[in-house]
Amino acid sequence: MSGSLMGKVFSVMNWGESHGSAVGAVVDGCPAGLSLSVADIQPALDRRRPGQSHLVTQRKELDRVQILSGTVGGVTTGTPISLLIPNEDQRSKDYSNLESLYRPSHADFTYQQKYGIRDVAGGGRSSARVTAGWVAAGAIAQKILHLNGIQITAWVEQVGDIRLSIEKDSVTLAMVESSATRCPDTQVALLMEQKILQTRKQGESIGGIVRCYIKHLPVGLGQPIYDKLEAELAKAMLSINASKGFEIGSGFEGVKMTGSAHNDIFIHNNGRIETQTNYSGGIQGGISNGMPLDFAVAFKPTATILKPQKTLDLNGQEQTLQVHGRHDPCVVPRAVPIVEAMTALVICDQFLQNKLSKL
Amino acid sequence: MSGSLMGKVFSVMNWGESHGSAVGAVVDGCPAGLSLSVADIQPALDRRRPGQSHLVTQRKELDRVQILSGTVGGVTTGTPISLLIPNEDQRSKDYSNLESLYRPSHADFTYQQKYGIRDVAGGGRSSARVTAGWVAAGAIAQKILHLNGIQITAWVEQVGDIRLSIEKDSVTLAMVESSATRCPDTQVALLMEQKILQTRKQGESIGGIVRCYIKHLPVGLGQPIYDKLEAELAKAMLSINASKGFEIGSGFEGVKMTGSAHNDIFIHNNGRIETQTNYSGGIQGGISNGMPLDFAVAFKPTATILKPQKTLDLNGQEQTLQVHGRHDPCVVPRAVPIVEAMTALVICDQFLQNKLSKL
Amino acid sequence: MSGSLMGKVFSVMNWGESHGSAVGAVVDGCPAGLSLSVADIQPALDRRRPGQSHLVTQRKELDRVQILSGTVGGVTTGTPISLLIPNEDQRSKDYSNLESLYRPSHADFTYQQKYGIRDVAGGGRSSARVTAGWVAAGAIAQKILHLNGIQITAWVEQVGDIRLSIEKDSVTLAMVESSATRCPDTQVALLMEQKILQTRKQGESIGGIVRCYIKHLPVGLGQPIYDKLEAELAKAMLSINASKGFEIGSGFEGVKMTGSAHNDIFIHNNGRIETQTNYSGGIQGGISNGMPLDFAVAFKPTATILKPQKTLDLNGQEQTLQVHGRHDPCVVPRAVPIVEAMTALVICDQFLQNKLSKL
Amino acid sequence: MSGSLMGKVFSVMNWGESHGSAVGAVVDGCPAGLSLSVADIQPALDRRRPGQSHLVTQRKELDRVQILSGTVGGVTTGTPISLLIPNEDQRSKDYSNLESLYRPSHADFTYQQKYGIRDVAGGGRSSARVTAGWVAAGAIAQKILHLNGIQITAWVEQVGDIRLSIEKDSVTLAMVESSATRCPDTQVALLMEQKILQTRKQGESIGGIVRCYIKHLPVGLGQPIYDKLEAELAKAMLSINASKGFEIGSGFEGVKMTGSAHNDIFIHNNGRIETQTNYSGGIQGGISNGMPLDFAVAFKPTATILKPQKTLDLNGQEQTLQVHGRHDPCVVPRAVPIVEAMTALVICDQFLQNKLSKL
Repeated sequence: MSGSLMGKVFSVMNWGESHGSAVGAVVDGCPAGLSLSVADIQPALDRRRPGQSHLVTQRKELDRVQILSGTVGGVTTGTPISLLIPNEDQRSKDYSNLESLYRPSHADFTYQQKYGIRDVAGGGRSSARVTAGWVAAGAIAQKILHLNGIQITAWVEQVGDIRLSIEKDSVTLAMVESSATRCPDTQVALLMEQKILQTRKQGESIGGIVRCYIKHLPVGLGQPIYDKLEAELAKAMLSINASKGFEIGSGFEGVKMTGSAHNDIFIHNNGRIETQTNYSGGIQGGISNGMPLDFAVAFKPTATILKPQKTLDLNGQEQTLQVHGRHDPCVVPRAVPIVEAMTALVICDQFLQNKLSKL
Repeated sequence: MSGSLMGKVFSVMNWGESHGSAVGAVVDGCPAGLSLSVADIQPALDRRRPGQSHLVTQRKELDRVQILSGTVGGVTTGTPISLLIPNEDQRSKDYSNLESLYRPSHADFTYQQKYGIRDVAGGGRSSARVTAGWVAAGAIAQKILHLNGIQITAWVEQVGDIRLSIEKDSVTLAMVESSATRCPDTQVALLMEQKILQTRKQGESIGGIVRCYIKHLPVGLGQPIYDKLEAELAKAMLSINASKGFEIGSGFEGVKMTGSAHNDIFIHNNGRIETQTNYSGGIQGGISNGMPLDFAVAFKPTATILKPQKTLDLNGQEQTLQVHGRHDPCVVPRAVPIVEAMTALVICDQFLQNKLSKL
Repeated sequence: MSGSLMGKVFSVMNWGESHGSAVGAVVDGCPAGLSLSVADIQPALDRRRPGQSHLVTQRKELDRVQILSGTVGGVTTGTPISLLIPNEDQRSKDYSNLESLYRPSHADFTYQQKYGIRDVAGGGRSSARVTAGWVAAGAIAQKILHLNGIQITAWVEQVGDIRLSIEKDSVTLAMVESSATRCPDTQVALLMEQKILQTRKQGESIGGIVRCYIKHLPVGLGQPIYDKLEAELAKAMLSINASKGFEIGSGFEGVKMTGSAHNDIFIHNNGRIETQTNYSGGIQGGISNGMPLDFAVAFKPTATILKPQKTLDLNGQEQTLQVHGRHDPCVVPRAVPIVEAMTALVICDQFLQNKLSKL
Repeated sequence: MSGSLMGKVFSVMNWGESHGSAVGAVVDGCPAGLSLSVADIQPALDRRRPGQSHLVTQRKELDRVQILSGTVGGVTTGTPISLLIPNEDQRSKDYSNLESLYRPSHADFTYQQKYGIRDVAGGGRSSARVTAGWVAAGAIAQKILHLNGIQITAWVEQVGDIRLSIEKDSVTLAMVESSATRCPDTQVALLMEQKILQTRKQGESIGGIVRCYIKHLPVGLGQPIYDKLEAELAKAMLSINASKGFEIGSGFEGVKMTGSAHNDIFIHNNGRIETQTNYSGGIQGGISNGMPLDFAVAFKPTATILKPQKTLDLNGQEQTLQVHGRHDPCVVPRAVPIVEAMTALVICDQFLQNKLSKL
């Protein structure tokens, strides 16, 4: 079954494994006439790739994207855009010890059972490395959205129990990028960084929450049923590695509110219809209402830890798993550009779909 | 664009509006040879329809399903199954006062802006009435899952700030159906009921959380990327009216845990490989691992309240909205069978897809 | 698997069997704002339904279409349009004698083998009756195309060895409808009629060819690869019952031509770029070039004949099949509106898709 | 819009242009456990690539395929298989003279109008070079079909007015490959070769017909409506460059037959149910009946000829087009492996789909 395709109008086929020769994506449905070069995509990959700060994995990958098709003279032609990112850190390590082990809370067991075979090296297809294809494709979507004034910003809102409280409208990309944690508040960022470093020192890992916020989204994106805008976003977010939850607007906390407090009253604002509050998170009835789109994604603590763990091998024998080397003790700093990319892919697809709503 | 189709192998096209002549769904991809009659579907619709208890809307709808195609002699033939549910409470009321008003936190504004036209009566396509088509289709999916021993149970876990704590494995359909709230614990159910009645008396509404739990799910359902099992479930849940969040396994709370506490250690249990804990919620790497599937869905307080509210009309003039009659002050009791149906549709689709994983 | 869905943007899910309670279709993706009532659809069904002339089946079906959803006040709302056509001539006959027989060149054997069960009455899903859903949906597509000046005309070009030669640009709907054969030339129509009547007298059937011609099609419809315009049309035509071939422009005869004779030279015509000849049939590289779209569909002789035939029963015993009653000795007169409807569905889908080609 | 994706279960996303850095395809949905290496794919590409005989284009392309993902240790893992074929003869020529010209019966005009831009070099996306991705993917499909005993053979049946008559069951791959024309009869092959060489000498081109024949196809492949087996094949064939027609079984000639002559009578043959004749071409009601699948595809004379032709430039000025160098005067010899590949892709997709027909 085709489970690797994302989007109906702006479609992306993602392919690749952690330690194969390359990862990539094919974008089918990008309109012709978009100025596009490697320089539009590489910065997004640079934000995603490992080894950028002392907080994250030190795997050496330059993640240099190649555009193999779909443009001529730096302009899209309306034909599929094939994006390829060579794996440089390829099959260099010996993974034979992992072949016979099921790592806890990894995909080893489920892949082995489903397919009868799995690519052990680096987790194969279940590695977060495969998000590189999405990030590359997302950069193209971002470019289309930027041309239409739509601005997506994601940041780290929580690490463990350290939670940021901030005026969302005020957050900028520069604030996000000013710390290795990608938390836009300097003070809280420092606390988060300490938490992550301390976690690593203990051979442990910790979870976190990424907030995503979209400004200047037009009214009308999303289909009423079944392809609601929040439903498409929820699917995209839950397809990111290690994510465990999605909430939009008031989310899980909102269940305690009363209707009169929760309802977003319509008001005028400089000739535009807006709502006084935004508990809806920018969507009503599956369709964007012109208010900022506001959602959060929960990420579990990284499954790979340095502490020894009990597990089973393929023969069902108990074994002790001992991982060496450096791993991300907390995925949320690196998840930020992935959340943005997946969001851009969903929004761009719905943005184009919406052009066909009326006669 | 086609946004009303759900599923790739077991596909459902949902159609209809609140006050049109009927609502319905077409199921394309149900395998041949399934014994199927109205008696398999009607009970699910009876659980969903309004007017069943003193807690919910009293709209009079018998919701009598008709099977218009796809079976012969009470057995499916492999061709599309067309399901139709007449609207009996059709266009009886005068909705002209709503034509010019945008109800807060309803879909009036977004539909009007997206399409330039909307079906005012009963909310048209944005009404929860359209879930009847899904519930009917879901009953067919349920039958296939039952034949394979898979058991889906949903219940009300929270209403406002009243939260149930229960051993999930112990919950049965009978326990869920023993109270109007659909909370399986008698004591907590009583508190929830009081909360809902008190909320209604105040002309208000309140939110809640539905828990869904799947037992005896085989290993291997779900696609690694992009159609992960949890991603498909998240989409389906966020496409239900009034839902604002989805979490699986440890969810949003799990972000505070450390990796060693969160990782689900593999163990033997009567010759089967299981995990000691289930923070993963039954899915690893997008694929079911044979443990119970365990997720929650947050629902906002009902947007329709009896308290007067300020709003704008189509001309941008401020107006006061005053709703009369009886409405559901809390959607979660009625959301339970809808969550089950949507879950069944996702699981059945992935169950069939999984037959093609290996040569 | 979902095999009953046609179209990506303007999508149609077809459902129903010959002798079930109804047949129908759900149109998902029709833009909002289209004026639409039963009066727009019924004439197309009237052209398709049996019993209109002395040449065709006398089955009594009024084919009264109902629009169950998707419009309000006679205007489309952008939500799915559910179309239902009750079967009036329902299960009236005794089909038990056919249950155990495989009729030659019918779908009895293949359905039975594929599904292990089949709906015997009237051929079930394999009956041409199910094209009623497509014709109804096609009428909606036609309305959108008419608003854009696009004009589809199909006619009977050949019955047996009687072949029409005509200036295609001159053919009008009135000419087509002026004879029971739907051949636009009075003289040739008479010969065809005699041929059909004589064939019926002999208890026999005969094949034919339908020509379809589209005027005022804009440049740009179709996707380069894989969804080429001619490829989509070929699929749609080969999915019509009894069709055995499709050719566009020069078709099978064109293989004998040289390149210099076959190439369509570009010329000016009143400020427009056209081609001197139209061997391409209006499509180059999968995309419409603004010239008339010109293709033909071959239909085999009707499988149902009154002459006795040898066949096998379900037990593999030789039997003699003897059909009674009146059947269409030649399908092409009734195929004309079906070819037009399927063409309209393809063209409308591609017309909408094309709005997304450029930024 | 996504128009480059082929297949629902065994899906192929094709990408690339004639003179870009590479062409390729991503196969999503290949079951795990298939032994697969470059050696399984390269021979198919070698049959397709230019420069193999004195009859065809001399472009120097080695067409060395790379498998970038989806296998481990030479076995498929169930994840997407990314296939890449570098373009070696890349942008070497000066195409600036073609930038301003619309070549007759090429896709220059339609691409330019649809997209406002086009890749001039070698025809860009409209080049037959992009079929390399399909041929590579088709080789994987072929391997699955071979494991199931299904055998696809295509050959040249007609060049210009030289037509082959042969017992189809007798044709083997060796016979097809024994001549540069890919006509399995030595005598007729010689006549065809002379015809092609003479055509080239005149600076001309000529069309032809490819026959495709599938043995040992199981009963049950194809969906009744809309994804009929012959409909899927027709679409695939009409999406091949230069094809103008498709017919199955009796095809266009069959329209002259009577029903009693055309109907395929069921008979016993060694315990199997077969039909006495095969005018149906192996499909009844959209579903394979176990008889050989038998269809033909018409190809127009190559649009590129060496004779000077009149045409228009982008400014609408009349120009004379004079092409130099060597080009295929007849595409059918090279179309044979492409027809086989596209057929394999359709059949493999339906073969897998059919596993889900019954409970």
